[in-house]
Amino acid sequence: MNHPAAVPTASRENVLEGLADIVGARHVLSDPNDTEPFYEDWLHRTKGDALCVCQPADTAEVAAVVAFCAARGLPVFPQAGNTSSCGGSVPLPASGGVLLSVRRLNRVERVDPQNNAIIAGAGCVLADLKAAAAAEGRLFPLTLSSEGSCQIGGNVSTNAGGTAVLRYGTMRDLVLGLEVVLADGRIWDGLRTLRKDNTGYDMKALFVGSEGTLGIVTRVALKLFPLPTLQATALVAVASADDAAALLRHCHGELGSSLDAFELLSASQLDIVCRHVPGNRNPLPGHPWYVLVDLQSAERSQDLTARLEAAIAGALEDGIVADAVVAQSGAQIEDIWRLRHSVSESNRRHGLNFTHDVGVPIAQIPEFLHRADAAVAEAFAQAEVFCVSHMGDGNVHYTVTFAHDTAEPAALGARVTGMVHDIAMSLGGTFGAEHGVGQRYRASLRRYKSPVELDLFRSMKSALDPNGILNPGKVL
Amino acid sequence: MNHPAAVPTASRENVLEGLADIVGARHVLSDPNDTEPFYEDWLHRTKGDALCVCQPADTAEVAAVVAFCAARGLPVFPQAGNTSSCGGSVPLPASGGVLLSVRRLNRVERVDPQNNAIIAGAGCVLADLKAAAAAEGRLFPLTLSSEGSCQIGGNVSTNAGGTAVLRYGTMRDLVLGLEVVLADGRIWDGLRTLRKDNTGYDMKALFVGSEGTLGIVTRVALKLFPLPTLQATALVAVASADDAAALLRHCHGELGSSLDAFELLSASQLDIVCRHVPGNRNPLPGHPWYVLVDLQSAERSQDLTARLEAAIAGALEDGIVADAVVAQSGAQIEDIWRLRHSVSESNRRHGLNFTHDVGVPIAQIPEFLHRADAAVAEAFAQAEVFCVSHMGDGNVHYTVTFAHDTAEPAALGARVTGMVHDIAMSLGGTFGAEHGVGQRYRASLRRYKSPVELDLFRSMKSALDPNGILNPGKVL
Repeated sequence: MNHPAAVPTASRENVLEGLADIVGARHVLSDPNDTEPFYEDWLHRTKGDALCVCQPADTAEVAAVVAFCAARGLPVFPQAGNTSSCGGSVPLPASGGVLLSVRRLNRVERVDPQNNAIIAGAGCVLADLKAAAAAEGRLFPLTLSSEGSCQIGGNVSTNAGGTAVLRYGTMRDLVLGLEVVLADGRIWDGLRTLRKDNTGYDMKALFVGSEGTLGIVTRVALKLFPLPTLQATALVAVASADDAAALLRHCHGELGSSLDAFELLSASQLDIVCRHVPGNRNPLPGHPWYVLVDLQSAERSQDLTARLEAAIAGALEDGIVADAVVAQSGAQIEDIWRLRHSVSESNRRHGLNFTHDVGVPIAQIPEFLHRADAAVAEAFAQAEVFCVSHMGDGNVHYTVTFAHDTAEPAALGARVTGMVHDIAMSLGGTFGAEHGVGQRYRASLRRYKSPVELDLFRSMKSALDPNGILNPGKVL
Repeated sequence: MNHPAAVPTASRENVLEGLADIVGARHVLSDPNDTEPFYEDWLHRTKGDALCVCQPADTAEVAAVVAFCAARGLPVFPQAGNTSSCGGSVPLPASGGVLLSVRRLNRVERVDPQNNAIIAGAGCVLADLKAAAAAEGRLFPLTLSSEGSCQIGGNVSTNAGGTAVLRYGTMRDLVLGLEVVLADGRIWDGLRTLRKDNTGYDMKALFVGSEGTLGIVTRVALKLFPLPTLQATALVAVASADDAAALLRHCHGELGSSLDAFELLSASQLDIVCRHVPGNRNPLPGHPWYVLVDLQSAERSQDLTARLEAAIAGALEDGIVADAVVAQSGAQIEDIWRLRHSVSESNRRHGLNFTHDVGVPIAQIPEFLHRADAAVAEAFAQAEVFCVSHMGDGNVHYTVTFAHDTAEPAALGARVTGMVHDIAMSLGGTFGAEHGVGQRYRASLRRYKSPVELDLFRSMKSALDPNGILNPGKVL
C-alpha cells in the first residue's frame, strides 16, 4: 500500500483553517470523540485516521474542499453512511488526509412520478429516499438490511445489490444520472433523467462501483417504479441446494417477472439468527436449507398469495420442496423477512467471522457449496459455516466462523478467504459480487485479475485521478 | 476532422501483404467491386474509403491485425453489420486505414439455459443469435427492424435500443461480459456470465456504446430470459400525443411488467408506411396518432389478450383512446408489427429525409412534438414531418422530409437538425438516444456537451487509444 506521508503538525492547522473557511468551523471535526465514528467501520474491524472530518453542505463546497486538497496533495477519503463491509469507507491508518463526509447532502430534491425519476443528494439515507418515492406512489427498489443508515452516495459508489436485484438489477441499473466532483475539484454535471442516451462514453457507469477512487458522487438521479400494492412471501424448506436451484427455475417459469427475491439460507444460518436476534423463530425446524420467496406486484386484480401457493404446490408435487409456509398477513410477511434481515446482526454477534461475498454462475451454486464445505471441514475442524445467498443472482455470502478468542485471526482469515475465493474463481466466479473491494479484497484483486485488466483499471485511475488523491488504498 | 494522412502506394502493397499473412489473402479485399458494400452505409448517405477490407477469422487474428496496424500508425475502422444510421460503421473518405470486418466471428458458441446466458462472436447476426436462444427455450430480447442483417458486435458497440427497451433495457443492460481487442492489440478477457461482479471498474459498460473508438468487441456474453409463450398486440388510435402519454401511464398501472412495447406513430408516418411498403394497411384510418401496444409473457395460465382488451376498454371509458384493434391471431399480430418495422424502409423510399433520434424525459414528449412541429412549419413550408417514438423510453425518431431534388441538402439538413436538437436539449433531452454519434452527430456532441464532459471523453480516449487509431473521426 502506498500510504501518503502524514502532513506535519504545523500545516495540519493550516489545513483545518483552510477547510473551515470553506465549510464553516463547526463542520470541521478534529476532536477524537467526534471523529471516531467516522474513522472506524461498523464491524469494528477496520480503523483509520485522518487530519479531520470535513462536512460540506453542498456540491460547491465539496468541489472547493477537493480543489483545496488537490492543491496540497492531500488524500481525500469520501464517506457516506459508513456501512461498507470491506473497509471501503474509512481512511487508511495515519493517512494524513481529509475524511470528506457527504452526510449533509441529504436532501431529496425532486420526486417526478410522471417520469419515474428521483433526484437526491449523496448523503440521503436510503430509507428516507424510499419513503419520499413511496409518498408519490413510486418504488425505489434497492433493498438492504442497512437501509436505515446507509446513504445513497455510498450505494452508488459500491454498486450496491441486496435482495431485490433479481427483479430490478443492481444500483448501476437504477442510476439515470450523476453529478460527480472530479479529482481536481471540477464538477461533472451528468444529472440527467433520460431513459436512453447514447451520446458519448457512459461515464456514469464507470463512476458507479468505483468506490470513490475516480470521483466523488454528490447528487444522483434514479429510476422509480410503480409502487407494489400486493406482496406474497413464503419460507420454503428444501432438502438440498440442488433442490433450491430446481425451485428457482420452477419459480422463474411459474411466477416470471413478479419474482422479487429468492434468498437461500442454510439451517445453520437460520439457527444463529433465531439464537442471537430477538423476535425471530424458524417456523419449519429440522430441514437443512430454506428459501425465502417473495412476489410483488403493482398490477390490479391479482391474487399473488394464491399464485405463490399454487407454484409451491407444484414444486411439492415435483418433490423439490419438503415443506413451506406462505404468509397470510402483513405481520407474517414481516416475520419471514425479519429472519433474512437479521443475518448481518446475528453473524456479527456470533463469533470471529470471515464473511465472503462470492458470485458464481447460478447453476454452479450447489457445486460451490459442496466444494467449499468440504475444503473448510478438512482444513478447520473447529469452524462453523453459515450461508445466505441471493441465489437468483448467483451471489453467496459464505461465512466461516470461529470462537471469538481464536489465535492469530488475521492469518487465519487470509487462509480461509484464500480457500473460499480460489473455489469461487475456479468455477468461473468472482471474489466480490456486491460488496466491492475496499481495503479487504485488494489482495484478491491483484491475485485474480489478469495483467491486462489490472492495466485497464490503472489507466482509468491515471486518467481520472492522476495524483492518486481520491480514496487511496482502496480497490487498486 | 483529423483525417489521418493516406499511406503512400508503395507501402499500401506492404500493408495488404502483411494483412494477408495474418488472415489469408482471400480475406483481404481490395477490389472496388468487393469493397464497395463495406465502404458505404445502407442509407447511401455516408461513403468512405480504406486501403482494404480485412476479415479475420477469430479473436487472435483480430488482435494480430490491430497490432500490425498499431505498429504502423494505421487507422482501424471496425465494422459489424454496417447498419449504422449515423455513419459510425464506414471509414472516413481517403482514410488510409484498414476496414476490419468482424463478420467471420459469427458463431454462437454456447447457449446456457440454466444460467440464462449466451456467448457469441461479434459477427453473429442478431436474428441468428435470437434463433439459437429460442431453440433452447430462451429469449434474447433486443428487437430491431434490422435484426436480419445487423451483427451483435455492432449492437454492443452502439448500445442498441429498439422496441423492447421498455421491458428489458438497452444493450448495455443485456451484456454480462465482453472480450475486447485493445488499441495495442492486447486482448481483454472480460467474457464472464456472472449476474453481479463488483471487483474493480466496470470496463464493459465503458466499451458498450463507445462505437469502436476505445476497443474492438470480439465476443459477447449476454443475458437470456424465459421465452414468452403468450403475446397480445393492439393498435390504438388516440387524439393527441398527450392522450398517448396518458395511455402509457394507464398501461404501466394495468399491465405492469408484461408491457413489452409502447410505440407511438403519427398518422403521417403510418400513411407513408402503407404507401411505400407492400403488405401494410391501416386498420383504423382517420386519426392523428396511433400507439402499438404489445404484451408478452412466459408465465402459464394467463389470458394476455383479455388483459389487453380490458386495459384498453378502461382507457376508452376514460376518454384517452379513440378506437382500437386487438389482434386475435398470430397473423394479426404480425400485421400490426409489420407497420412498425416498415418505418425505416418507407422513410428511405419517400424523399430526402432528415431523421432524428432525440430523447426527452417521457412526460416532455408532447411538448417536444408541439414545439418541433411549430418550428418546422414556420421555417420550412414545404416540409413533411413523420414521427415514430419508443414512447416508453422517451425516444422520438422525428423525421423531416423534403422532395428528393431539393437544393443544397447538406446545408438544409444542418439547419433542420440544429433546430430539432436545440428543442430536445432545451427540454433536458439528448440529441442521440439510441443510434449513437458516429460521424453524423459529432458537431452536436461538440455543441451540447459541457467542456468538463468533453474532457472526460477525451481522457477516456487517451487512456485506451493514445494514438487515436481506433475508428477515428467517430464520436469525438
